[in-house]
Amino acid sequence: MIKEQYPSRLLEDAVDAIRSLPGVGKRSALRLALHLLRQPQEHVHHFTDAINRLRDEVRYCRNCMMISDDEECSICRDHTRDSRTICVVESIRDVMSIENTGQYHGLYHVLGGIISPINGIGPSDLTIRELVDRVARLTGESQEEVEVILALSGDVEGETTAFYIYRQINRFDIRITSLARGLGFGDDLEYADELTLGRSIVGRQPFKP
Amino acid sequence: MIKEQYPSRLLEDAVDAIRSLPGVGKRSALRLALHLLRQPQEHVHHFTDAINRLRDEVRYCRNCMMISDDEECSICRDHTRDSRTICVVESIRDVMSIENTGQYHGLYHVLGGIISPINGIGPSDLTIRELVDRVARLTGESQEEVEVILALSGDVEGETTAFYIYRQINRFDIRITSLARGLGFGDDLEYADELTLGRSIVGRQPFKP
Repeated sequence: MIKEQYPSRLLEDAVDAIRSLPGVGKRSALRLALHLLRQPQEHVHHFTDAINRLRDEVRYCRNCMMISDDEECSICRDHTRDSRTICVVESIRDVMSIENTGQYHGLYHVLGGIISPINGIGPSDLTIRELVDRVARLTGESQEEVEVILALSGDVEGETTAFYIYRQINRFDIRITSLARGLGFGDDLEYADELTLGRSIVGRQPFKP
Repeated sequence: MIKEQYPSRLLEDAVDAIRSLPGVGKRSALRLALHLLRQPQEHVHHFTDAINRLRDEVRYCRNCMMISDDEECSICRDHTRDSRTICVVESIRDVMSIENTGQYHGLYHVLGGIISPINGIGPSDLTIRELVDRVARLTGESQEEVEVILALSGDVEGETTAFYIYRQINRFDIRITSLARGLGFGDDLEYADELTLGRSIVGRQPFKP
């Protein structure tokens, strides 16, 4: 194919910018740029303002590192929640996913990534230090039990990160747990991968009729 | 599913803005917003600036209505091109597609849409008037033949628009053509739709070995 010629440098710049988004190819970027070009000017400015404001004005909760409009996020400010249970997750998105289940009533700690030597991400790039300080503060404040749930993904990087954190906080007298692993609800045995099925058998639970 | 809770109004606004793009759902919009949040501030500003500048500063060629950085587009300014052949297309994107073939050396006329009563688009919303003026000017300037190629899509709306334009410019002494229709190159007879195959037989061409 002949190299795509852009009729306008402005269009080319916009397409290049849009292509920098993950999962957006050249064709989609052109389609989106031409779509934006057809919109009323106020609409386009509203679009870009919303993105700029997100990047420029968003804050991170001083307690759990979740994004927030204030110094402390709405979850940490909610005194009906169990402040002695901390669910450690990789990202903001994981918090939103767990919140959507409606099953969790403790607080969170957002690591901001996962230990990944290939991607050059080490423990000091994450908020592990802040987590350790938080656990130290909680255990110092009261004798009541503290639980840290390591809710990280089940791949090598997730397990490495979980193990690293475990070693950092194991010296405190706390309960450390991780998410239950096994077949998904409604999953068909036939289509489950061997590793999951194997772990489901080993970690079998008392039957509750 | 429980209604998605956003931890920040800024995030919610950005997700809503990104969702307004065609083909972008709620999940993708959230993914893109969180991606942008992780980028350096200059990167995000470069992204939004490129989009704002496209919308604010782009111009349309006074001759063919193609987008352009100047008063006249680079195609119309190219004097090696045949200025007496005008290829009428629906959109900017069609110009780019035809230019990419490298097979066309005339000029264009961008309608800016297609006649579509369902979508409330009538002839006066398109640049048909400008096309008629342009043809009048060209035929008035010289006796040399003028050709107008109606390169519109093969659906009902495309054919309606082509027919409408045909009636507007048929009074001039010009050649009016449309794109060849038939099986695509490399297409398998077996998988061709009946309409295309039928038209391919009716419009059969002398065999060129």
